[in-house]
Amino acid sequence: MSFRTIEWRDNTVIMIDQTRLPAEEVYNVYTDFQGVAEAIRGMIIRGAPAIGVAAAMGIALGARDIIADTHESFFRQLENVCDVMARTRPTAVNLFWAIARMKRVAEAHRDQDLNAIRAILKDEAIHVEEEDREICRAIGKNGGPLIPEGATILTHCNAGALATAGYGTALGVIRAAHEAGKKIRVIADETRPWLQGARLTAWELMKDDIPVTLISDNMAGWLMQKGEIDCCVVGADRIAANGDTANKIGTYSVAVLAKEHGIPFYVAAPVSTLDLSLDSGAQIPIEERGSAEVTHIQGVGIAPEGVKVRNPAFDVTPARYVTAIITERGVAREDYLRSLRALVQG
Amino acid sequence: MSFRTIEWRDNTVIMIDQTRLPAEEVYNVYTDFQGVAEAIRGMIIRGAPAIGVAAAMGIALGARDIIADTHESFFRQLENVCDVMARTRPTAVNLFWAIARMKRVAEAHRDQDLNAIRAILKDEAIHVEEEDREICRAIGKNGGPLIPEGATILTHCNAGALATAGYGTALGVIRAAHEAGKKIRVIADETRPWLQGARLTAWELMKDDIPVTLISDNMAGWLMQKGEIDCCVVGADRIAANGDTANKIGTYSVAVLAKEHGIPFYVAAPVSTLDLSLDSGAQIPIEERGSAEVTHIQGVGIAPEGVKVRNPAFDVTPARYVTAIITERGVAREDYLRSLRALVQG
Repeated sequence: MSFRTIEWRDNTVIMIDQTRLPAEEVYNVYTDFQGVAEAIRGMIIRGAPAIGVAAAMGIALGARDIIADTHESFFRQLENVCDVMARTRPTAVNLFWAIARMKRVAEAHRDQDLNAIRAILKDEAIHVEEEDREICRAIGKNGGPLIPEGATILTHCNAGALATAGYGTALGVIRAAHEAGKKIRVIADETRPWLQGARLTAWELMKDDIPVTLISDNMAGWLMQKGEIDCCVVGADRIAANGDTANKIGTYSVAVLAKEHGIPFYVAAPVSTLDLSLDSGAQIPIEERGSAEVTHIQGVGIAPEGVKVRNPAFDVTPARYVTAIITERGVAREDYLRSLRALVQG
Repeated sequence: MSFRTIEWRDNTVIMIDQTRLPAEEVYNVYTDFQGVAEAIRGMIIRGAPAIGVAAAMGIALGARDIIADTHESFFRQLENVCDVMARTRPTAVNLFWAIARMKRVAEAHRDQDLNAIRAILKDEAIHVEEEDREICRAIGKNGGPLIPEGATILTHCNAGALATAGYGTALGVIRAAHEAGKKIRVIADETRPWLQGARLTAWELMKDDIPVTLISDNMAGWLMQKGEIDCCVVGADRIAANGDTANKIGTYSVAVLAKEHGIPFYVAAPVSTLDLSLDSGAQIPIEERGSAEVTHIQGVGIAPEGVKVRNPAFDVTPARYVTAIITERGVAREDYLRSLRALVQG
């Protein structure tokens, strides 16, 4: 890759500022966990797997800075750090998965001295990041074969290198097909309101010389009707036990349209995105964000002042619209209750 | 209404500049037909019925300015004026309907002197405008009863007072329901790439104190899944003999989603929007506009420089997704081939 989404370097966390892409490629340096939490909340970094990595690194920074005389004080403060991280975004389960993992590692080494625990948490955060890139490669390896030679693939939002520690989930599948020499072409939904497709997906695919065409979200249906889309691949922020998938707002519409046109609809996500504690997507919390994301684009007003707005950041695609869920451990299909559980149990 | 979309005054054509709404309410004055043609092409005025009115007024201006010694020369130059008008936008049939009407009126009075013909064309253009407002009122009267008490109505693009000489087609139906005292609420799709919903529909409904909530286009499916939409009403740019309807890009997606959720999907349009010369929507020409509308919003870049773009301005909704077509002469339902023809034949 020609860029890094997130990196631990010299005891700081470095992130490419996704709010400033594609106009500027700027790397922000975070020296404390509050900064990392703010970066997640402010979408400097976004995408479920990348948020997980950021949370782990933020906790490592927080642990480093805790001033404590006793283990009890240290662990109480670590809990606070984790709480701050948990409150940044509600929908992406990778966030909570990463927090739980860091806590578990800390607990498992409770008998060691505090500096040793701090070092272990730092190593674990770096490991989460490295692991995420390997997982994306594996998702690509498992999903790439599903993409037909010459296919035009629709993707929504950015489930790419920028949404992960690198390579991507949905875009990982696309990259793998591209690397296998298939002549593929990507149609990127611009993904209002935050424009992840226009700003991020188009940018990273152009960087990798993978042919990409940008459309407004509402053009996807028409292209499908015209026979111009062969399959859809999207990421996920949380997947319930029955296969219902929360992903960026607009994903559900893509899935319904794909079904209406007999086009395969694939979800690509790491196993850490599965939340088997939820029976169905109805239990997934959906973040509603501020109205300015809808009324303004890059700071420019596009709507009458004072207009009422809805801004759900995610939606839930019922499992019946999902052709397959591609993970690093294999590809799950209906019945998801069984196939997803099998993947988790390994 | 608290504003006029288009008006003939003092031998000029005055239009509210829809490219500058909602930030500024500016009225442009056009003194020649080339200016009017440019205004249509540049979307200073848009919406199928309003484009028809503008074309008629543009032709009246053109006729006024023709320098001719003979009827033959006058009619040849009038033909040129009409050709310029016809090349402004390809999809809206009202444009061609208005041009044909103006030509027919001129021909019908060929025996009169040129100044008399010029005066007749001016009167006809003004009449087209007045008639359009009456037609919208009639569409509202016919469609209003279809809107349930307390309904939340989704609309796409702007088929409002701004898309017509006043009152609107889809928004005419909504206005009529509102005027009948029904407690209704409108959800306005922002309608990328040109943002007619965010900029125009929200603006004109707020002006009339009709409750409106703005969403990104890709939120409509999720709101439908949550049971928050009771019916959809949209306009049309051209309707084929079988009921297939061309309208602003994204309309087809709304229709598919509405069908998936069992939500009625209504098209509101004047009879002049019917093009019974076309068997089906496959024959409707679809305008593709420049890439800057997708890569830039209000002049601000949102995509990497040089990215490839598709920008179809319209799509075609097959008749099977359309619950009813509401016109000034009545409401057509399946079978459209018969019901639409009956409306046209009166």
